[in-house]
Amino acid sequence: MKMAINQITLNNLTLRQAAEEIAKAGIGGISVWSDKVMAEGIATSKAIICDLGLEVSGVCLAGLFTQKGIEGAAGQIDASRRAIDMAAELGAGSIITVVGGLLPDSKSHDEARAVAFDALAVTLEHARGTGVVLSLESLHPMYSPDWSVISTLKDANDWCDRLGPGTSVAVDTYHVWWDKTAPAEIARAGAAAQLTDFHISDWLMQTESLLRDRGIPGEGVIDNAAWADHMIAAGHTGWVEVEIFSSRIWAMPPGQALSKIVAGCRTCLGDRVL
Amino acid sequence: MKMAINQITLNNLTLRQAAEEIAKAGIGGISVWSDKVMAEGIATSKAIICDLGLEVSGVCLAGLFTQKGIEGAAGQIDASRRAIDMAAELGAGSIITVVGGLLPDSKSHDEARAVAFDALAVTLEHARGTGVVLSLESLHPMYSPDWSVISTLKDANDWCDRLGPGTSVAVDTYHVWWDKTAPAEIARAGAAAQLTDFHISDWLMQTESLLRDRGIPGEGVIDNAAWADHMIAAGHTGWVEVEIFSSRIWAMPPGQALSKIVAGCRTCLGDRVL
Repeated sequence: MKMAINQITLNNLTLRQAAEEIAKAGIGGISVWSDKVMAEGIATSKAIICDLGLEVSGVCLAGLFTQKGIEGAAGQIDASRRAIDMAAELGAGSIITVVGGLLPDSKSHDEARAVAFDALAVTLEHARGTGVVLSLESLHPMYSPDWSVISTLKDANDWCDRLGPGTSVAVDTYHVWWDKTAPAEIARAGAAAQLTDFHISDWLMQTESLLRDRGIPGEGVIDNAAWADHMIAAGHTGWVEVEIFSSRIWAMPPGQALSKIVAGCRTCLGDRVL
Repeated sequence: MKMAINQITLNNLTLRQAAEEIAKAGIGGISVWSDKVMAEGIATSKAIICDLGLEVSGVCLAGLFTQKGIEGAAGQIDASRRAIDMAAELGAGSIITVVGGLLPDSKSHDEARAVAFDALAVTLEHARGTGVVLSLESLHPMYSPDWSVISTLKDANDWCDRLGPGTSVAVDTYHVWWDKTAPAEIARAGAAAQLTDFHISDWLMQTESLLRDRGIPGEGVIDNAAWADHMIAAGHTGWVEVEIFSSRIWAMPPGQALSKIVAGCRTCLGDRVL
């Protein structure tokens, strides 16, 4: 697998700054976030990435269909369509899709799942016309209230099966590492040729924040090498992308952060990563 | 169901202080922690609880078999045996059993599960002689690294099936509310007559700490009424126990905390609670 950096890992930088740091660190891929691309302009972003010899390894983010309530779902679908079009212009094959958490003023996961599923089906019609695959990312259960009512790879695979072509599954070790059914679900996604994205980071034993305290691979207790092996066995030949939400990393000089990340990945993954 | 308070909710108080506050608030049950009982003495604890007209609704804690490594498992089994004997002396029917997280210096959930399962089987032999049931509590996946490699009710039920008589399942809404398979697993435990404990609290939308920021029922996004209905439908007729790990609640005057808890439970649960 080739190494890539998800732009959130360098969250304080613009797209141009992040791309320059990633290229300087000798890493070949950047996964971009739509707000940062929009801030720079799509054509400019594409030129920056291309001129630095980088590839777009992934795009974030479509979805969050439930975040603004049932009335707000149409607006979220529109925003997702724009993000999908952006992904297509950047030449990306897929876009990370996070379906959203509970509806405002509701405590029902079932209701949120129904709204999210319907919105996803509508969004998929548009995505199919662009060739961009919607890559469903299941998030850790601790994010089920606010970010994703899809909490397991099994649910992501089930949704792909129900929705059909144009959908796939994204695997992030931070979200799935606790789940003993996850290896079989990775194999299932691979067998269905619906396995597109692989994100890694680490779980710190003393996690201080639910959202902003992930570790660099090697700092915590996730066996990223074992998960990489599951991905490779399932046929994944694309990128391994480091995605770290961390106030600590964001406060570091970016060159230093990337140097620690490259060293951590090499130690954890060995020759699984180029 | 009758209302009870888990002693951790009043973590800064001794057993005597906690029991007095709980009785003063008109609540009928107290779930005790073994360290607090040991500090007061078992016979004294029993007399305090009895004299105040309270019942022991539950006992914490057996298990944590993996916490001190493979070499330390024997010591953890011994400690669990003592806690089980204490539960028997207090007249409790079951003891909450949390199996433990990853082994020190290991990243393998599989390895931890194997060690925990074997230790549990040994502990169960002792428990059977006392009549105290080992009530397996699955914890939220965010506690899988340090507290419990059983992260779902399905796993707790599967372990009960493998271990046989003398085991049961504890349901805590904070741990299971994200899991869409949980209602069916509650029904499964009820049908197998292995459903003994029911804990509630709430998930705060802006959770600040993984361990010490639970909410009072009604403050957050868990539909505790729906979960109570699942428990009642599965045949649970015992206690509904409020267990809140919260620095905020611990800093409140205990009478005020209990008054908020009683009001919250009445509003959330209506006539499901006496």
